[in-house]
Amino acid sequence: MTRRVAVVGASAAGLRCAARLHRLEPEWKITVLERNTVYSYAACGLPYVLSGDIDSLVELRSTAWGTVRDRRFFRSVKGVEILEGHRVVSIDPEAHTLEAEGPDGAVQIGWDELVLATGARPRRLPGQPDHPRVRCFHTWDDVVPLKDGLIRGEIGRVAVVGAGLVGIELAEAFRTLWGAEVALIEAAAHPLPQLLDPEVAALVGAELARQGVVLRCGTPVEGIEAGDGGVVVRCAGAAVEADAVVVAIGVEPEVRLARSAGIALGRTGAIAVDRHLATSVPHVWAAGDCIEIRHAVTGEPVHCPLGSLANRQGRVLAGILAGRGGRFPDVAGAMAVKVFERTVAAAGCTLTAARAAGFEAEAVWMTTDDRAHYWPESEDLHLELVFDRGTLQLLGIQAFGSGRAVDAVDVASQLLARGVPVDELGEIEHCYAPPFAPALAPVAVAAFVARNHAEGVRAMGPLDDPGADRVLDVRLAAERDARPWTSTETVHIPVEELGGRLAELDRSARWLVLCERGTRAAEAVRMLRARGIAARYLGGGMIWRQMALGGGR
Amino acid sequence: MTRRVAVVGASAAGLRCAARLHRLEPEWKITVLERNTVYSYAACGLPYVLSGDIDSLVELRSTAWGTVRDRRFFRSVKGVEILEGHRVVSIDPEAHTLEAEGPDGAVQIGWDELVLATGARPRRLPGQPDHPRVRCFHTWDDVVPLKDGLIRGEIGRVAVVGAGLVGIELAEAFRTLWGAEVALIEAAAHPLPQLLDPEVAALVGAELARQGVVLRCGTPVEGIEAGDGGVVVRCAGAAVEADAVVVAIGVEPEVRLARSAGIALGRTGAIAVDRHLATSVPHVWAAGDCIEIRHAVTGEPVHCPLGSLANRQGRVLAGILAGRGGRFPDVAGAMAVKVFERTVAAAGCTLTAARAAGFEAEAVWMTTDDRAHYWPESEDLHLELVFDRGTLQLLGIQAFGSGRAVDAVDVASQLLARGVPVDELGEIEHCYAPPFAPALAPVAVAAFVARNHAEGVRAMGPLDDPGADRVLDVRLAAERDARPWTSTETVHIPVEELGGRLAELDRSARWLVLCERGTRAAEAVRMLRARGIAARYLGGGMIWRQMALGGGR
Repeated sequence: MTRRVAVVGASAAGLRCAARLHRLEPEWKITVLERNTVYSYAACGLPYVLSGDIDSLVELRSTAWGTVRDRRFFRSVKGVEILEGHRVVSIDPEAHTLEAEGPDGAVQIGWDELVLATGARPRRLPGQPDHPRVRCFHTWDDVVPLKDGLIRGEIGRVAVVGAGLVGIELAEAFRTLWGAEVALIEAAAHPLPQLLDPEVAALVGAELARQGVVLRCGTPVEGIEAGDGGVVVRCAGAAVEADAVVVAIGVEPEVRLARSAGIALGRTGAIAVDRHLATSVPHVWAAGDCIEIRHAVTGEPVHCPLGSLANRQGRVLAGILAGRGGRFPDVAGAMAVKVFERTVAAAGCTLTAARAAGFEAEAVWMTTDDRAHYWPESEDLHLELVFDRGTLQLLGIQAFGSGRAVDAVDVASQLLARGVPVDELGEIEHCYAPPFAPALAPVAVAAFVARNHAEGVRAMGPLDDPGADRVLDVRLAAERDARPWTSTETVHIPVEELGGRLAELDRSARWLVLCERGTRAAEAVRMLRARGIAARYLGGGMIWRQMALGGGR
Repeated sequence: MTRRVAVVGASAAGLRCAARLHRLEPEWKITVLERNTVYSYAACGLPYVLSGDIDSLVELRSTAWGTVRDRRFFRSVKGVEILEGHRVVSIDPEAHTLEAEGPDGAVQIGWDELVLATGARPRRLPGQPDHPRVRCFHTWDDVVPLKDGLIRGEIGRVAVVGAGLVGIELAEAFRTLWGAEVALIEAAAHPLPQLLDPEVAALVGAELARQGVVLRCGTPVEGIEAGDGGVVVRCAGAAVEADAVVVAIGVEPEVRLARSAGIALGRTGAIAVDRHLATSVPHVWAAGDCIEIRHAVTGEPVHCPLGSLANRQGRVLAGILAGRGGRFPDVAGAMAVKVFERTVAAAGCTLTAARAAGFEAEAVWMTTDDRAHYWPESEDLHLELVFDRGTLQLLGIQAFGSGRAVDAVDVASQLLARGVPVDELGEIEHCYAPPFAPALAPVAVAAFVARNHAEGVRAMGPLDDPGADRVLDVRLAAERDARPWTSTETVHIPVEELGGRLAELDRSARWLVLCERGTRAAEAVRMLRARGIAARYLGGGMIWRQMALGGGR
């Protein structure tokens, strides 16, 4: 039976769905309606066009073999008809029609199945001025004026509002190729507030600072004044002057069409769909950045506008429409972003989010080698695990370091989605060879640290204040001198000597034990506790703390 | 209750077990007996000492903070007593004693629990001469004479026997730093025969050849003649002359002590243990390279001497001995090795092994980008998936390319161990950002390829002969010219034009469709099949085939 499928939006989800549906059902008539005339480009690559890592916008719109993905391509190769420059203005779910305005006037199209892939649009600041010097960063059209301004030397100082994924990518783009002065302004207390806890975010902040980005956190923008001579961003009493302002405070689902057609929205404001991506209206489906999905850890609906999910949703939906079944599973929200020379990746819940979701959540921190410690290119990897105190269920992971941070989160994501206890993460198998990994996988070691925590070997957060604790430094003298603990007095006994010198410790005090990465200190805590001495250790060690508190790396 | 635990072998498994056991049970008396006086070094790093990536052997024996892991270290920090230079000569499992010969004569030690961590020893060739120019490569003592010979210029030509993990690492070590002429001699038909199918092994072979290694496969060594002036290795009628020969044909479990004590060995010849690492004799346990374990895919016992597993076994066994429970799970055999500038990784079964284990196994191949295709540092990633024809259960994965190959196999390993269908691999979540991954994870795309195969979109192996198939090249003209199919005549219709030119194809023929990576060709096969034309495509595309057949990359 031939069917007519209309897809609204030539986005990742819409086009992926349409193309696969044609492969599965070559006789069906598949039409994609798209408001713009330029589409099917990898929007995630836009910051890298600005940075110069990618030469031209055309590359983002081309296949791996260099063919431009335009209307002709989709017609001849993918069997999909795209109506460019056609804005859908209304849907009649009863009559199975839609109306669109195109370059030649209004058109009406009938459909048997309708797919909404309307995507998302950038959030704007309240009262954001409509001025060429102030723009969001979301589409192809946002790149050109910025790049031109940089090339012509008209933009030397940039204020980026929002230290989310895009804001950080933009800060890097402006800074690395163009050497612009960049102020990165974030309303929340730290960068990537939805994705990271303060301890990991502080490492991101340290790398931004090391690269010369002026990071201002906890400073909501109060107003922007744009004129011919420049822009002033007012926040927390300060006035940040710049030649251009880019607002990157996230996106909101584009649901106007869905709402006007009576399609139910969910709690997040995005289109509500079931596991088969069906909306509340029969024969109307939705996929991509306009929908909300279920979080694998909390079970709550979330709006998670990630290109990886949109592509998967489009593909799954094609199978569902073709009658092959399928479902879109809950998501852990795995993500990664390059922060200049470092990488940060995360999945699942932050400690804050886990507690807000009702878990009795705890966190542990560790610093370790991303490869065999003797491998010359080995680098520090910082991991935070979030887990439930009672069940020890793994709830979240955050990783900062080399590109191996991505591997750690990719692997942990497979377990996060399954709701397993941290001990299962400790049992994982990994590819071991000195150039790629240590003999024990870093995520497995993090799971051991969580298990130790459950057994009473507790960590203090890398940023916390030790309060009244006495401080025991178990490092070698050279390490202590190179990266000293300066805020309070310390007792120094290297872990190599500790067994024989326990009598030197005041048994009535509570001790905070510290070392470079946390490993030795945790062992020392176990030793002290076995002798009845109260102790905890500095999670992530002095390396984490010093970098997070601004000492560089 | 204080217990006495004796551990035979200061290996990764033995020391990891002993150290953790002390942490869990500080009052227990833990003694490790070790034949050698130098131990607790990362043996996996030895080839990289030879290559110069690592400066000195001491680095392999040091902690991450630079303390040498010697007897004093283990005593003071780990609470473990090591009897160096003590060779255990007999065990009395009834009397719970063992006898060892040490520097000061024989000692007898009583134990409540005994751990065998006797490791493995290198295999020798039949009739392997005992000559300084001919050696295995297994310990600290094997590195020094080779490195000295290289430094003094006495070794300019090396024959490495065995193209396994160590053989490949050695070939790289001799070649990159020292520029030695290296002949790599393998009895099997291709390198890494236990770990790879011929299609992926051919890529390894191509990289070895590109780096100037002379690879001789299918050539069992018939004899080695060593003299003062040099060595001659005779294989398959050829005589390979060299200044030194290194035999790296694998290891066998060291089980002499266990056997003499009446402890049961398994089918592989290694010590048989249950999931709790208990041997057949009560209170005697075993861990590390001397035991056999269960393969997660086949369910069969395997001897899998990997440092990552030995470390995990030692840790798990400590928990079991301390009464905390635990088990060692089945293994998928995840592994990776650096091959000069490339990486190869694998887990689960090869196609050959899967069929031998009774599966109706099939394989698919694909070439894809390891990162967003427009990312400037993006590189080709070659993947082979092995799966069951009926159930579509994932049975194995092999990956060749950049370091991202490790990530692909690490993620797939988590699913392999769970016995899931390939479709679950297609549903995985991954960290997506252009510098790290494409929007669809490469392993997920490989799963789609396997699903397509099940739906009739079949691939021909990258190395196979098309037989009587007509060949249809769907690439752009420039691609066709740059990397032509030369063995038979081709019809050339770019995929962009194929829809309108299907009438040009002989409908009575069977077609082999090819493109650069397999993606377009697979789409074309679907198109042809929908029109009733018999077709299959070249798996992995011309990039894979040309590299595998010797065209370089």
